[in-house]
Amino acid sequence: MTEGSAGGRTPSRAVEQALVDAAERVLVRDGLGGLTVRAVAAEAGVAPMGVYNRFGNKDGLVAAVLARGFDGLAAATSEDTDVDPTARLLACGRNYRRFALAHPQHYGAMFGPGLSQAAPTAELADRADAAFTALVDRVRYGMDRGALRPGDPRGTAQLIWSSVHGAVSLELGGLVLTPDAAASYEALLQMLLDGLR
Amino acid sequence: MTEGSAGGRTPSRAVEQALVDAAERVLVRDGLGGLTVRAVAAEAGVAPMGVYNRFGNKDGLVAAVLARGFDGLAAATSEDTDVDPTARLLACGRNYRRFALAHPQHYGAMFGPGLSQAAPTAELADRADAAFTALVDRVRYGMDRGALRPGDPRGTAQLIWSSVHGAVSLELGGLVLTPDAAASYEALLQMLLDGLR
Repeated sequence: MTEGSAGGRTPSRAVEQALVDAAERVLVRDGLGGLTVRAVAAEAGVAPMGVYNRFGNKDGLVAAVLARGFDGLAAATSEDTDVDPTARLLACGRNYRRFALAHPQHYGAMFGPGLSQAAPTAELADRADAAFTALVDRVRYGMDRGALRPGDPRGTAQLIWSSVHGAVSLELGGLVLTPDAAASYEALLQMLLDGLR
Repeated sequence: MTEGSAGGRTPSRAVEQALVDAAERVLVRDGLGGLTVRAVAAEAGVAPMGVYNRFGNKDGLVAAVLARGFDGLAAATSEDTDVDPTARLLACGRNYRRFALAHPQHYGAMFGPGLSQAAPTAELADRADAAFTALVDRVRYGMDRGALRPGDPRGTAQLIWSSVHGAVSLELGGLVLTPDAAASYEALLQMLLDGLR
């Protein structure tokens, strides 16, 4: 089997990517409960055995979709590289919410029941850790430049993550009890900066 | 039908309470997915028709269990009436976490998929609102006494709720990436006080 020319993908890898694409469409359409080997096979137009052979079972499918989600979140929150540490942190927070609102089914699966359902592979843990590390890096950048007070960057990142995760979870659940969810989220980011400065 | 002597409950009301008790046991044992009319009837030792007659269907059962949950959360977060406004806010935050960790299935149902699954009755909305109001009252108390800077108490309560909800949701999901979840939660409460002062 030769390497394909586009991005060095082998044909086998391309088939796998096409199946994960199909799995993402099923997740968005039918939710986590509908993400079955049979549904993904039908969506991709292949025999169920083709899905079983690559992903094992539903757990493997969920893990593949979650890995895509963590990659997308890491990319979104690493996007802004503003030199100003406060601006970089604010952009990270805004991009976190944007990702969650644009991909609610992924977000719910990544940090809800999906994660515990998925086979906890080392690869998946690495991808999730990379998404958290994007935030830790921004916190460290902010501490080094006086935008946040010195401390353990992972500990401070956990506090920020708790708050933004809670805010977007409530928003996705229709539980923002104030008139303007976007304004409330901006006030949350400012509160975090004030409380951690 | 005469009023019963214990707490003014009619026998009919006592039966209903016994069915909600049974529904709570099913929720704790089998999760939200297992909370069916059939399972609750079996748990309570009655015919399924007895459950249908009082709760209609699964939605009605979920709503009844969620209402209990909101009452419990409101009671837990209203418990402490320390005169010092900072101490009262801290106790409210600690009691929120204690309730969630002690009742993870209720908590997950109250603020996860359960709430959107339940028939959105006016009564349930009132019970949920009462739980939020317990926090708003504490925020107003803190603003009036200088522990929090002046502002819209509901808006500030939404920020606090976002953060504590996120923290306990991550903890219930096994997603606290620092060594000590209790210490991280205390740091979160302090961050909220610092950021809102």
